[in-house]
Amino acid sequence: MTTQDTAKPADRLTHLTEDGSARMVDVGWKPVTDRMAQATGHVVMQPETLALIRDGLMKKGDVLTIAQLAGIMGAKRTSELIPLCHPLPLNKVDVELALDEPANSVNIVATATTSGKTGVEMEALTAVSVAALTIYDMCKAVDRAVRIDGIRLLRKTGGQSGDVDLTGS
Amino acid sequence: MTTQDTAKPADRLTHLTEDGSARMVDVGWKPVTDRMAQATGHVVMQPETLALIRDGLMKKGDVLTIAQLAGIMGAKRTSELIPLCHPLPLNKVDVELALDEPANSVNIVATATTSGKTGVEMEALTAVSVAALTIYDMCKAVDRAVRIDGIRLLRKTGGQSGDVDLTGS
Amino acid sequence: MTTQDTAKPADRLTHLTEDGSARMVDVGWKPVTDRMAQATGHVVMQPETLALIRDGLMKKGDVLTIAQLAGIMGAKRTSELIPLCHPLPLNKVDVELALDEPANSVNIVATATTSGKTGVEMEALTAVSVAALTIYDMCKAVDRAVRIDGIRLLRKTGGQSGDVDLTGS
Amino acid sequence: MTTQDTAKPADRLTHLTEDGSARMVDVGWKPVTDRMAQATGHVVMQPETLALIRDGLMKKGDVLTIAQLAGIMGAKRTSELIPLCHPLPLNKVDVELALDEPANSVNIVATATTSGKTGVEMEALTAVSVAALTIYDMCKAVDRAVRIDGIRLLRKTGGQSGDVDLTGS
Amino acid sequence: MTTQDTAKPADRLTHLTEDGSARMVDVGWKPVTDRMAQATGHVVMQPETLALIRDGLMKKGDVLTIAQLAGIMGAKRTSELIPLCHPLPLNKVDVELALDEPANSVNIVATATTSGKTGVEMEALTAVSVAALTIYDMCKAVDRAVRIDGIRLLRKTGGQSGDVDLTGS
Amino acid sequence: MTTQDTAKPADRLTHLTEDGSARMVDVGWKPVTDRMAQATGHVVMQPETLALIRDGLMKKGDVLTIAQLAGIMGAKRTSELIPLCHPLPLNKVDVELALDEPANSVNIVATATTSGKTGVEMEALTAVSVAALTIYDMCKAVDRAVRIDGIRLLRKTGGQSGDVDLTGS
Repeated sequence: MTTQDTAKPADRLTHLTEDGSARMVDVGWKPVTDRMAQATGHVVMQPETLALIRDGLMKKGDVLTIAQLAGIMGAKRTSELIPLCHPLPLNKVDVELALDEPANSVNIVATATTSGKTGVEMEALTAVSVAALTIYDMCKAVDRAVRIDGIRLLRKTGGQSGDVDLTGS
Repeated sequence: MTTQDTAKPADRLTHLTEDGSARMVDVGWKPVTDRMAQATGHVVMQPETLALIRDGLMKKGDVLTIAQLAGIMGAKRTSELIPLCHPLPLNKVDVELALDEPANSVNIVATATTSGKTGVEMEALTAVSVAALTIYDMCKAVDRAVRIDGIRLLRKTGGQSGDVDLTGS
Repeated sequence: MTTQDTAKPADRLTHLTEDGSARMVDVGWKPVTDRMAQATGHVVMQPETLALIRDGLMKKGDVLTIAQLAGIMGAKRTSELIPLCHPLPLNKVDVELALDEPANSVNIVATATTSGKTGVEMEALTAVSVAALTIYDMCKAVDRAVRIDGIRLLRKTGGQSGDVDLTGS
Repeated sequence: MTTQDTAKPADRLTHLTEDGSARMVDVGWKPVTDRMAQATGHVVMQPETLALIRDGLMKKGDVLTIAQLAGIMGAKRTSELIPLCHPLPLNKVDVELALDEPANSVNIVATATTSGKTGVEMEALTAVSVAALTIYDMCKAVDRAVRIDGIRLLRKTGGQSGDVDLTGS
Repeated sequence: MTTQDTAKPADRLTHLTEDGSARMVDVGWKPVTDRMAQATGHVVMQPETLALIRDGLMKKGDVLTIAQLAGIMGAKRTSELIPLCHPLPLNKVDVELALDEPANSVNIVATATTSGKTGVEMEALTAVSVAALTIYDMCKAVDRAVRIDGIRLLRKTGGQSGDVDLTGS
Repeated sequence: MTTQDTAKPADRLTHLTEDGSARMVDVGWKPVTDRMAQATGHVVMQPETLALIRDGLMKKGDVLTIAQLAGIMGAKRTSELIPLCHPLPLNKVDVELALDEPANSVNIVATATTSGKTGVEMEALTAVSVAALTIYDMCKAVDRAVRIDGIRLLRKTGGQSGDVDLTGS
């Protein structure tokens, strides 16, 4: 049983060795299981900027499609970006974006699944982050106050630490 | 003078053509100038998790160094991640991380500079995002409620649209 | 049974959701099986250009070896290039190139194999495309009319949709 | 004056040394100039497959937008894919796709521009190839006879070898 | 039985076909087994340079941590760098660095493990090489005579060719 | 005047800040100049292994061509591999390999040139390292005692710190 799979308080982070140096956590002993993770985040902007995105939706090539693809492609590069993250195959990456006009934001939900030895939280979170940065990129010329907020895990299933549902939090 | 460089209300996003399809903005006509952009973001967590990071700081290989390097390396891959972003040389990327114990967060500030035809906001924002995801990765085994918040531009200089200072906002 | 595995006319592309947005097809439910795909393509050029390649074959470092390696390396990056393509391990990638002097062309055949949940057509086709572009690159200074033609699937085996042989078409 | 810039018959390819080994052509002596290249290619398919793409165009997330983005992003990775190609900054990459119903094909035109020491033909051709492969990927489940044809240079401007216009050929 | 798994003298390299062209060795027939490889290497420098690294160790952000991370991240990109190398998942990559003051060197030991069809020697050796180059990069401004030496395999386990222990050689 | 450009003893490494954290050295103030760097390294092996490479040289697709291309392509990825290295354009990368039968080794010399703000030592050294690893990969099935030795700078020109010639050392 590892720090990762227990409720008792951790005394150190799993990516640091006892002497404090960095390490990739060994997942060799873990079984291959089906795993899912879902993450979310928001891109908050001026109402006028959101209106420009909304108006673009009537046409082909819109902002949300570009961000969706960037998120999917970003998820596939997670292990290149995050130093101690394991490379792993992906069964699916979904990125959904929706305008939330009362909140002046684009809401992003990304879902990643794998049949692997370790979870796909980082893939889902990276998909959200890259999709959010892509929206930022396309809005930055008209709105300098765009802000990316609330990137967090929504839920995960599979793996030894049990299912997690944070959608209510 | 382009939409990008004027104060009058934009009628469409610069990355969409008139018929709504995606495009990379043409920067061929722009002069090469020295440009700087600085961005920030926060990783909010449980106080116990922040304490584990703080304790790691006494040792080599700590969490903040890993996140700093990931941010610098991520900035160099911005144009691979953001579909309509231009590849450009970088003179410098700095990523600074600091613990904010009252706010239970790690605060990140990234600065990118270039001598180029277009700005480096996306490089600074990508550095912040990848550094934040890296902290998330190292904390996720002990804290499932980590949240990345407030990724935004702090300031930029250089380029035709003039300097911008959002540090007070 | 999915659209992908049936003979009845498809009513939409498998990479679009019902509301028309992009998605990576979920392969989580598919068994891991041995799969092979073979693709072909041609690079057509002036006879004088083909003669320069042929003459290079007597020496080390020839054009066909460079194109062969580029094709093999390109196949390994398929999932980075094709937005909705799954990353998957490869058991083998072969790229064979031959001069077809009557047709003034270099003919390329690439074969990819995997033990995976999805097929390797895109890996074989990407290998052919990158090999063809590499030949183009090396010939373009002496021949501006080089043309890449006939990139298509030759055959595939493994997977639920059954074997396919298009070599006679 | 090099082989590349003269009308007399070439006696060897510029990417091979005198003893036949591979080399990256030295562009250090060349001035930085504005350069443009435009390339084209076609993806030929069954009429029913083309109809599925056309029907998708009414909705967001359509096939052509995905292919367009893949082409733009592919162009930015040209020097990673083509072994002897120089890395260079890009001012713009445009990828346009149009349905040609009489020809049962999707026609692709890509334009790349740079301010650099060498041309951007390979970037334009790589954009076309990756866009074409992406269309293939999305159509392959419903049509195994898709074929990529006619990838070639349309025109180029800038650089010492003078402008080239192959649009009529 | 292949050349790879026999003691009799090889008559050609496994990466060349009978007619001498390059190939990726087919690993499709091999079982998935747990495999480990460990490699080493040394970065030799002036005593004054080694002292600067040693002094940096007291602080956060030190040279060895940066090199360690670079080595881990480099191992994940092995199949992109080495043309005929198979992409494969990694269970763990460890990079350990130690100062050897009598030898005026930084000693590097990297360990990679996988559950796969082929070994991870190249991943361990790439980790060592990239970590060594990273140390070089950080020392080159103060010491132009840095030298990377003795990159070699220490041991490997798993796979059909049996375990290998070269630590005594 | 910086530590980098002076003969007085350095009191810290240029990639560490005063408080010891990592940084990319700022090259924004430096002029663009023509720069060259040349590096070398050796792959030492059993005489029988060297004979297999030598025999392959008579045929197309030989080991040295593969290693040469891998070195050239590796040089183009230097800034992705080395954390604090600047991305920069390259005018040329040459990799030359020669058999040294008395020494039982393959000798590698790589030369990189740029018109840029910083030097290309790391590009030349990365080219040597990746070429050496590629030779290792192709020899490892027949010779487990291959060793990579003596990777070091040979000479550099351009830049403010003056020319360096280490060929005699």
